[in-house]
Amino acid sequence: MFLVKIYVQLKKDILDAQGKATKKALESLGFEGVQDVRIGKEIRILLDGRDISEVSEKVRQMCDKLLINPVMEDYDFKIMEVEK
Amino acid sequence: MFLVKIYVQLKKDILDAQGKATKKALESLGFEGVQDVRIGKEIRILLDGRDISEVSEKVRQMCDKLLINPVMEDYDFKIMEVEK
Repeated sequence: MFLVKIYVQLKKDILDAQGKATKKALESLGFEGVQDVRIGKEIRILLDGRDISEVSEKVRQMCDKLLINPVMEDYDFKIMEVEK
Repeated sequence: MFLVKIYVQLKKDILDAQGKATKKALESLGFEGVQDVRIGKEIRILLDGRDISEVSEKVRQMCDKLLINPVMEDYDFKIMEVEK
């Protein structure tokens, strides 16, 4: 079995309103030196599969067909083999 | 300057409705072997600081005071030094 972690972030030129609000909130709590905050998703999937290359292809299809909005989001992922 | 990536996930015993819905959607698209889907956050912060240990302490405080709901969420983070 494989554990896949997919990291999804808004593209750089798209305004991240939640990140901006979080930056302001941190500053109002007295935290200094915060240059930027971006809030993305971490999707963890437990997945059966033969090997890393098969799983990797499957994950790419999942991202293309459902998980990612390619107009607004970038993603990358990593795959780890785990005990059943 | 430091880039901090904070990974936030719902605690294991808390129902992840978004994850469950995503699992169902993947299955209805024909993806087989999906055992579990959990959806969390990846928060990226660009932060000034002297060294890793100072930044690490600051990040822990940010999580305690604002970013994390300790009743429902677990987190971990990593810190990388980056060019200004």
